[in-house]
Amino acid sequence: MTLFIDMDEVMADTYNAHIAYYNAEFGEKLRLEQCMGREVWQCVPENRRQSIYNHTSKAGFFRNLSPMPGSQEVIGELCQKFDVYVASAAMEFPVSLKEKSEWLDEHFPFLHWKKRILCGDKHILRGDILIDDRSYNLEHFIGRPLLFTSPHNLDQNGFERVANWQEVAERLL
Amino acid sequence: MTLFIDMDEVMADTYNAHIAYYNAEFGEKLRLEQCMGREVWQCVPENRRQSIYNHTSKAGFFRNLSPMPGSQEVIGELCQKFDVYVASAAMEFPVSLKEKSEWLDEHFPFLHWKKRILCGDKHILRGDILIDDRSYNLEHFIGRPLLFTSPHNLDQNGFERVANWQEVAERLL
Repeated sequence: MTLFIDMDEVMADTYNAHIAYYNAEFGEKLRLEQCMGREVWQCVPENRRQSIYNHTSKAGFFRNLSPMPGSQEVIGELCQKFDVYVASAAMEFPVSLKEKSEWLDEHFPFLHWKKRILCGDKHILRGDILIDDRSYNLEHFIGRPLLFTSPHNLDQNGFERVANWQEVAERLL
Repeated sequence: MTLFIDMDEVMADTYNAHIAYYNAEFGEKLRLEQCMGREVWQCVPENRRQSIYNHTSKAGFFRNLSPMPGSQEVIGELCQKFDVYVASAAMEFPVSLKEKSEWLDEHFPFLHWKKRILCGDKHILRGDILIDDRSYNLEHFIGRPLLFTSPHNLDQNGFERVANWQEVAERLL
């Protein structure tokens, strides 16, 4: 069984990094709990949104993300049962490509380079399960799509949902 | 119809670049015609093979490759008829990731980032046609595999073969 796992917001805590960068730049105290149901750029004044968009092209942004709680242990165990691939829509941010590769080397060294996919559209993936936080990635997947909960997708319906890595473990292991 | 196209040896002339780097380093005059039926590392003395392997981790190697003759025109036309994706097993060489992205921006600007896939194993691709110079990529592809001729695969049998981009055009357009 082939299992694809998205990186940002699923393996890597991109949302909290956006908040940390924003708070540092503007001396604010935005907290994750204030962002529920929204994209991070929807939580800041309109004239500061561009600053949020710019984070992803900053050197080091993707390299220094924290792994999501439990992701390393659970993905390690999933590798015993599934043919696990990382599938990240990283091609949008060329500066991120090497950083994402290095980040995986550090936090998920057991995921061989052959198991890493950087792509755009995810409907080109052939496999059995896809864990992703974006419904537009899950919609066209032929297989079992799992929506990984993120502040921005709380109001999303229509997909089997996993709230965190603990729930992924309960569902798949 | 979804069409996947490999980069090295198919869109980009990696083989001739290896020869050029080798000749420059050792003051040799190796020519492509002398390499027929062999990998480039098989065409040099054993004690120089490591130098060939090292090319792919050199900064600039992938950035400065020449597009294969006819590739730009034919792929441009294929984009009118197919849903075209580049699929490169680039994850082996992290330094190449950004270079490959920039190379595509320069030579194939019409291939949007969503149409670019950097991966390891290619059996995770879901689509109709795969053009590749490596039989191990074609073997597990569910669809129509096309072997793109390269010096190293001349003796390979068992796949529908295209000798160059002219032949791809004749076969698919």
